[in-house]
Amino acid sequence: MTEERRESRENSVGVAQTQYVTFDSLPLESGEKLAPVTLAYETYGVLNEKKSNAILILHALSGDAHVAGVHEGQNNTGWWDAMVGPGKAFDTNKYYVICSNVLGGCKGSTGPSSVNPKTGKPYALDFPVITINDMVNAEKQLIDYLGIEKLLTVVGGSMGGMQVLSWLVRYPQRIRSAIPIATAARHSPQQIAFDEVGRQAIMADPYWKSGNYYDGPLPAKGLAVARMIGHITFMSDVSMTEKFGRQKKNNAQNVKFTADFEVEGYLRYRGDNFVKRFDANSYLYITKAIDNFDASNGMSLQEVLEGIKAKVLVIAFKSDWLYPAYQSKEIVKACKLSGIEATYCEVDSTYGHDAFLLEVEEETHLISHFLKKVFYEYEVTGSYDI
Amino acid sequence: MTEERRESRENSVGVAQTQYVTFDSLPLESGEKLAPVTLAYETYGVLNEKKSNAILILHALSGDAHVAGVHEGQNNTGWWDAMVGPGKAFDTNKYYVICSNVLGGCKGSTGPSSVNPKTGKPYALDFPVITINDMVNAEKQLIDYLGIEKLLTVVGGSMGGMQVLSWLVRYPQRIRSAIPIATAARHSPQQIAFDEVGRQAIMADPYWKSGNYYDGPLPAKGLAVARMIGHITFMSDVSMTEKFGRQKKNNAQNVKFTADFEVEGYLRYRGDNFVKRFDANSYLYITKAIDNFDASNGMSLQEVLEGIKAKVLVIAFKSDWLYPAYQSKEIVKACKLSGIEATYCEVDSTYGHDAFLLEVEEETHLISHFLKKVFYEYEVTGSYDI
Repeated sequence: MTEERRESRENSVGVAQTQYVTFDSLPLESGEKLAPVTLAYETYGVLNEKKSNAILILHALSGDAHVAGVHEGQNNTGWWDAMVGPGKAFDTNKYYVICSNVLGGCKGSTGPSSVNPKTGKPYALDFPVITINDMVNAEKQLIDYLGIEKLLTVVGGSMGGMQVLSWLVRYPQRIRSAIPIATAARHSPQQIAFDEVGRQAIMADPYWKSGNYYDGPLPAKGLAVARMIGHITFMSDVSMTEKFGRQKKNNAQNVKFTADFEVEGYLRYRGDNFVKRFDANSYLYITKAIDNFDASNGMSLQEVLEGIKAKVLVIAFKSDWLYPAYQSKEIVKACKLSGIEATYCEVDSTYGHDAFLLEVEEETHLISHFLKKVFYEYEVTGSYDI
Repeated sequence: MTEERRESRENSVGVAQTQYVTFDSLPLESGEKLAPVTLAYETYGVLNEKKSNAILILHALSGDAHVAGVHEGQNNTGWWDAMVGPGKAFDTNKYYVICSNVLGGCKGSTGPSSVNPKTGKPYALDFPVITINDMVNAEKQLIDYLGIEKLLTVVGGSMGGMQVLSWLVRYPQRIRSAIPIATAARHSPQQIAFDEVGRQAIMADPYWKSGNYYDGPLPAKGLAVARMIGHITFMSDVSMTEKFGRQKKNNAQNVKFTADFEVEGYLRYRGDNFVKRFDANSYLYITKAIDNFDASNGMSLQEVLEGIKAKVLVIAFKSDWLYPAYQSKEIVKACKLSGIEATYCEVDSTYGHDAFLLEVEEETHLISHFLKKVFYEYEVTGSYDI
């Protein structure tokens, strides 16, 4: 085994296994109740005796519970493998890391593609409207089930960051710190607009059939278009120019409206690939939850953060135009005004919104330092109140 | 009649009429030939004896020949009515203004929805691939037909600005000045990507039927999605926030995935409306022409502008992220380096790309001043060479 390989294996959490827990029911913000509710989740590292080293990682729109390592017999590493493992930002030698698939998702947690116990068929649009707060309530049930009184931190980018804010506002006594990354306290109309076009693309697909496509062909073209729009917003003008320029593909000259440019081929590939791994109805429900999210529910963010003792690290990225830095600054400002100990870091990246998955070195530096501080302070004072 | 009304009537070109001219044929850049070719066009004001006061206005993706005034019995004013008329930026008391629908369009000029003389049916995808340069060649035939040796200026925003650049590079001896607005010498991969997603949305619509939809239902949903994407890119984060905020619509609470937010309703309305006035195949052909355009054809822009005597006024808008100001600055830089007398103005607008249609006061100031200077210099020296 070469040195390099050994190192790479040493830095991995190794083989990870998805686990499942089913709760009798979950009351929803809408007043409806979902019963039963299953959450798929993975854990890495060991929970210490004091149960003081648990970290909850929250995923973005299309993520899942598999954040690190590989599944038995497969090669694909988890979606944030570069950040979770021995010696990494979320150091599994020190910390116990949990990640669950969100409520409404399609990777093992209950969502619109799950079987409705009342009918024996997939819920489809009979699945109730869900919110980011509902997702967090489900996650809280998981944390209760795991016997964890207080999380060392909750962390996530994009929609994951919204869940972080929901935890911070609604369950501050259950967390010692929060790390919202590349996110917003609420969507701007431009952000809503991008989501809405994606939804329209899905619902325009005749195979969508008002959500009842589970026993037939999928609304694949509509979902692919939705994902293509997403991918444009995940990158930046600069990163696209660096990656593709105006490079052309080698095509037959006589086929009209084929992918002439590399960037077109890339988008088509990403769109088609997404269809194999994601459910169109989940896309609709989750994007609606994102658009409807408002961390402070119409009140001022400062007001709802008043009196909260958790420490906050906010990270944004310069070229991220989907979740522009000014939205992160608004979160920081509200934290500061409400007396929360908050740190703001704007990483100078050209990767756009994708930066939160790609700027590993910078994030590792920021996060490992922040976590060490929060963890150390607890260990020294022994108090849950800091 | 109130003072206000009289003024508005006095400032209008009044009733405008679309005219048509048919040319035997047009050789295309691809090597193919289109025969015959019709151009729809409108003119306003009077061509002076020296034929020195003619201005050619070039429209954007979805524009048409009807730039100012109203059509008999109709109320809709032309798409740049605020800029074209007596006393306006393009003062029809002084200048003779021409605007034609582009080749490949669907507003009277020959395009994919026109009848193919060989088959007696609409061309659909048998329509040959066209380029921005082909559009300009057709416009040149129109200018020849109107007996105009030298245009006072060519002007246009967005795709219109690309045609301006094509005129400047390829027929500099036929223009005295050029005004490219909110445009680029070539599309970036991000710009190509947005167009490509629009095309994918159209082609994903089962009613598109590889372009053969003219005798049946239209690919309306696909085209609407394409237009919705467009509208997001035409506005800015700020202008959307100012116009819509997170304002909700009054909807029945139990309908899922309806337009909850005002911005969603707006996009759906604009998308659906577009379908009534635009041809999906024209959308495909024209966006491809835009994406393939490169003003300098792989060479440096400076190189191809060398020796050109036309004066240039480049206008960009601060919040335009679809055609960011840096692309306009590249044009100005190439002009300056090649010795062209070029002026650059970056208008401080929050309207995004739409600003080129909306920032009337600022544009009027810039353009009327520029035109006066170019026109006056010609009248004094009597030379075509300035």
